[in-house]
Amino acid sequence: MSNRIILLAHGSSDRHWCETFEKLATPTLEAVDGSRIAYMELASPSLEDVIAEGANAGCTSFTIVPLFLAAGRHLRKDVPVMVKTLEAAHNVSIQLAPPIGESPQLGHAIRDAVVTELQADTQ
Amino acid sequence: MSNRIILLAHGSSDRHWCETFEKLATPTLEAVDGSRIAYMELASPSLEDVIAEGANAGCTSFTIVPLFLAAGRHLRKDVPVMVKTLEAAHNVSIQLAPPIGESPQLGHAIRDAVVTELQADTQ
Repeated sequence: MSNRIILLAHGSSDRHWCETFEKLATPTLEAVDGSRIAYMELASPSLEDVIAEGANAGCTSFTIVPLFLAAGRHLRKDVPVMVKTLEAAHNVSIQLAPPIGESPQLGHAIRDAVVTELQADTQ
Repeated sequence: MSNRIILLAHGSSDRHWCETFEKLATPTLEAVDGSRIAYMELASPSLEDVIAEGANAGCTSFTIVPLFLAAGRHLRKDVPVMVKTLEAAHNVSIQLAPPIGESPQLGHAIRDAVVTELQADTQ
């Protein structure tokens, strides 16, 4: 597989925070061959480590899917700078996708989760 | 309806950021009678405004569903303090649900969005 999907979370020193993201990522990691989770900061593996690992394995192109509900300063400013640096350092092409929260599937999942919880509460 | 669902987002001065959350909330707001979106800060309506509006309309209990992927400082510290203050100020009961990212539906939606995007890219 020449293109590798990377699910990018912010990262935290709080282990429970990272575990939530690992659970969120699991269905994708199981469904998409070669996909990885990575963190911007404060947790491992870092984005740099995951790009380096992929480049060493022969991947020349990556798609970063941000596990963020919306684009704030990190996605508008910090991550694009990281992407340019990593492209140059590893001679690879990196596409930064919109935040996952902009995908319509997420709004439907929020509805389903709320409705399920409501039904569970009233049973 | 005696219990009102409030989808709570962080808030931002960036209009595009808030629009992303309004889109995320729309399927729930359409499906769940009386539900509302509210912001912690930097955008309106505020959580306080939405609780006050509901209390004035006769609601005595609210469930806050955080539109956050995981629980950081805001959900562990700041929102519980806001909840206690609002309960006392409006003589209502407020339940703080876990962040929406802890619902399994979200991980499945991320997978579906990524797989759809991959398929779209390779067509």
